[in-house]
Amino acid sequence: MSLDPVLSRIDETLPAAMERLLDLLRIPSISTDPAYKADVDRAADWLVSDLRSLGIPAEKRETPKHPMVVGHVDGDGPHVLFYGHYDVQPVDPLELWDRDPFDPIVEDTPKGRVIRARGASDDKGQLMTFIEACRAWKEVHGTLPCKITFFFEGEEESGSPSLVPFLEANKDELQADIALICDTGLFESKVPSIMTQLRGLCGEEITLTGPDKDLHSGMYGGAAINPIRVLTRILGNLFDDAGRIQIPHFYDGVPELPEDIAAQWDALNFDHGTFLGDVGLSQPAGEKGRSPLEMLWSQPTAEINGIIGGYTGDGFKTVLPSKASAKVSFRLVGQQDPHAIRKNFRAWVEAQLPADVKISYQEHGASPASQMTTTHPAFEQARSVLGAEWGHEAAFTGCGGSIPVAGYFKSILEMDTMLVGWAKDDDQIHSPNEKYDVESFHKGIRSWARILDAIKS
Amino acid sequence: MSLDPVLSRIDETLPAAMERLLDLLRIPSISTDPAYKADVDRAADWLVSDLRSLGIPAEKRETPKHPMVVGHVDGDGPHVLFYGHYDVQPVDPLELWDRDPFDPIVEDTPKGRVIRARGASDDKGQLMTFIEACRAWKEVHGTLPCKITFFFEGEEESGSPSLVPFLEANKDELQADIALICDTGLFESKVPSIMTQLRGLCGEEITLTGPDKDLHSGMYGGAAINPIRVLTRILGNLFDDAGRIQIPHFYDGVPELPEDIAAQWDALNFDHGTFLGDVGLSQPAGEKGRSPLEMLWSQPTAEINGIIGGYTGDGFKTVLPSKASAKVSFRLVGQQDPHAIRKNFRAWVEAQLPADVKISYQEHGASPASQMTTTHPAFEQARSVLGAEWGHEAAFTGCGGSIPVAGYFKSILEMDTMLVGWAKDDDQIHSPNEKYDVESFHKGIRSWARILDAIKS
Repeated sequence: MSLDPVLSRIDETLPAAMERLLDLLRIPSISTDPAYKADVDRAADWLVSDLRSLGIPAEKRETPKHPMVVGHVDGDGPHVLFYGHYDVQPVDPLELWDRDPFDPIVEDTPKGRVIRARGASDDKGQLMTFIEACRAWKEVHGTLPCKITFFFEGEEESGSPSLVPFLEANKDELQADIALICDTGLFESKVPSIMTQLRGLCGEEITLTGPDKDLHSGMYGGAAINPIRVLTRILGNLFDDAGRIQIPHFYDGVPELPEDIAAQWDALNFDHGTFLGDVGLSQPAGEKGRSPLEMLWSQPTAEINGIIGGYTGDGFKTVLPSKASAKVSFRLVGQQDPHAIRKNFRAWVEAQLPADVKISYQEHGASPASQMTTTHPAFEQARSVLGAEWGHEAAFTGCGGSIPVAGYFKSILEMDTMLVGWAKDDDQIHSPNEKYDVESFHKGIRSWARILDAIKS
Repeated sequence: MSLDPVLSRIDETLPAAMERLLDLLRIPSISTDPAYKADVDRAADWLVSDLRSLGIPAEKRETPKHPMVVGHVDGDGPHVLFYGHYDVQPVDPLELWDRDPFDPIVEDTPKGRVIRARGASDDKGQLMTFIEACRAWKEVHGTLPCKITFFFEGEEESGSPSLVPFLEANKDELQADIALICDTGLFESKVPSIMTQLRGLCGEEITLTGPDKDLHSGMYGGAAINPIRVLTRILGNLFDDAGRIQIPHFYDGVPELPEDIAAQWDALNFDHGTFLGDVGLSQPAGEKGRSPLEMLWSQPTAEINGIIGGYTGDGFKTVLPSKASAKVSFRLVGQQDPHAIRKNFRAWVEAQLPADVKISYQEHGASPASQMTTTHPAFEQARSVLGAEWGHEAAFTGCGGSIPVAGYFKSILEMDTMLVGWAKDDDQIHSPNEKYDVESFHKGIRSWARILDAIKS
C-alpha cells in the first residue's frame, strides 16, 4: 500500500474535501451555551454520517450533556485512536466579525487562501484533515492503513463534563496502541511541531454579594460596601510587582525547566517580538526573569477571563450594585494539582472578604498538565516524515494551552498520546474572524497520510 | 386665602390625583438610553398639557437632547421657581422586578399602601405633589398663592448635559426669589427634612485596551497582558486599608464638619444599624473613624458603578480579552472641584498603566457640592409648618446624593434653593421594585400647600 497515489488523490479531491468542511462549519455547535444544544447534536449526526460514508460503522453515543461520536475500523498493523472535537467557542463579540461566523467562506488574503468561520481551525478543520486522509487512503487502497478508532467529543470548549465518565465507562472499547490528537499548531506558523508538554487548566467563577439589592450610590455611597470595589481589590492582589501569582502554595509542583528542554527551546529562536506584535503588543507580560517560551509553555498563569458588575449599558447609572462576579482560570504545569489550586484560590479570596460580603462559586473544569512519552516509536516516525511535507524539520515543542483529554487518555486509558496539528498563530481561534489556511488543511491531510504510512510499517 | 379648605380639597381629590400620577408613570422616560428618546418627549408633552389644564401657559422647550418644560403663572407675594425632573433611571436588572416597571400599581404592603413603578418616588411622584397642591389651591381660591415658575427637566438621570446651557440662555426668564426642589426624602422615613448640604458628583468611564483582539488564554496566557488584570489592579488601589481614597489631592477642599452641624446631626440619633440592616448589611464601609452620617453626608466617595470585560455569558470561555472598562463616580463635598478630581483620577490611572495598555475616557457629568443659604426666610417658614403635617419637628439635614441643579441655580441664576421632599429610605429608587408611599404622596401634597401658604404671607 504505497503513499504516493494517496497523496495524489488528496490533491485531486481537495475541492470536494473543502466543501465537506464548509458544510460542517455551517452548524453552530457552541457547546457552552445551552441555546445551541440541538446544533451540537446536529454536528455529531453530521460526523456519524460522514464516517459511515467511509464504510466506518460510527455511532452517536449520548451523554448527560453533548454526545460523543465513536467509530471503529479493523485493520493490520498498530491500532491508533484519533481524537478531535466538533464543538466550537461562542462567537461574541459578534460585532467584531466581518461576516456571519457560521456562514463559512473561502477567501484570498495577502497571506494566502483561508477558510473563514468559527471552528475552521479549532477544531473542525483539523479534525477533518484526519478524516480526509483516511478517505483518500480508502479510495486508493480500498482499506485503511491500520486499525483505527475514531473518537469525537462535543464538549471540549465547555470543560468536557462527560469525558471522564465516558472514558471510564468505555475503557476497554477505547483501548489502542496510541492516541493521535489534531488540535494544535505549527510552531511560528511554519515548523511542524509535535507537542510534548501541555498546561493544565482550572476554571473558577466567583460571585460576590454585598447589599441584598442594588442601591443609589448617593443615598448609600460611603456607608454601604460595594461588591465591585471588593472584587477589584481582591483580584488586584492576584500578582505581585514581579508578575508572580500570590495565592499561597500556587507554585507547589511547578518544576524548573530541564536544561535539555531549555536548550531545544532556545534552538527554536522564538521571535516573541513578532508573536506579540501580531496582536498589538510589545512586552512579554509574565513573571520577570522568564523567557517568553517559558511564560507560554512551562510557567503557570492566572487569567481573569471575564468580569461584570453594576451598570454596563450606554450612559451612566449611579448604582451601588448588589453583585459582582468574575471568571478566573489557571493554566497549570508540572505536578500542580487543579483541585488544590481551586481550594487554595477560594481560601485566598475568602481571607480577603470584608464584613457583609458573601461569596458563591461555580466550577468550570479542572485538568492537570500533561507530559508526553516521547520515547514511543510513533513520535520519531511522525517527526521523520513531516519535514518532507512542510520544508522544515519537525520539532518537539511545549504548548500553553490545555488539552485535558491527553491527560485523561494517560490516567484513565493508560495510553500515550501524540499531539500534532496544522493551525497557525494568526488563526484567531476563540476570537472574531477565526480562519484556517487552505495550506493547513491541504498539507494537513497529506501529513496525516504520511504519518499513518510511517506508523503502519 | 385660607389653607384649611385647600387641605380638605386635597383629601377629597386624592384618588383623581393618584390616577394622574399613574398616567405619568406609564411613560418609560429613561433619559440615559437613546432607545427611549420618544418616550422622554412624551412625558414632557404630558406635563405641558397637565399644567395647561391648570390654566398655566406651559410649553416644551427643545434642547440638543431632551426637552425642558417651562411654565409661568403670575401672582402676588414672593416669586418661587419649582423644579422637578420627569426622566427616570434604567430598569435593569429587569428580572428582579416583580412586575413591569412601567405598569404602575397601587398595592397594600405590611408598611402601608404604595404606588409601585419606576419613577414613582424619583422623581415623578414628588414632582406631582407640588402640581397637585397648586391644583387644589387653584380649585379652591381660583388662583395660586404666589407667583410661580414651573421648570421640569428630562435629563437629570443622565448627567443633565443641556441644563447649564439652558440656564445660561434663559437666565432672566428663570429668575425668582427662591427655587424649590422636591427630589429628596424624609429623614429615617419619618422626620420632614430640609436639606442644607448636598454632595457633588463626577462621573467617569475608562476603557483599557491591551491586545488588539481577543486572544486564546492558552496560546497567549502568560506572555500577553490582560486588560482586566490591569483594570482590577488599578481600581484595587482606589482605597487604602482605612478606606481612604488614594488619588493624589482627592481630599483638597474637603472641610472637617463644623461642631454646630455635628451637634445637630448627633441630635438626630441616626440608627445606622436599621439603615444598613434594611439592605442586608451591618458594618459602615466608609473611612475608619467617621460616623455613618459623615460617611453619607459630609465625606466624599469613590464608587465603581459598573465594570465589564471578557466573557460574561453562561458557561466559561478561556479568552484573554482585548478590552475592559469601568464606570466610576465620585461624590464630592465642600470645595472639591469636579474637574480637578477628573484630571487627578486620570493622572493616577495613567501612572499605573503598564506597557502596551492604552486607555480611553468618557465623561459622565461633573457638579460641585452645594451648601444652602439657611438664613433665607423660606427655610424657617417651611420648617415651622411641616411639623404639624408629619408629627415630627422638621430638621435641617445633609444629603449624600447629588442634585447638581441646586448648585447651578446658585452659580448661574444667583438664586437660593430649598430642598424638601417626601421619599422614604425603602423607596428603592434606582433599584428594582421602586415605590412611593401613598402617605408620601398625600402628605406631600398637603405639605406643599402648607409651605406655599407660609411663604406667601
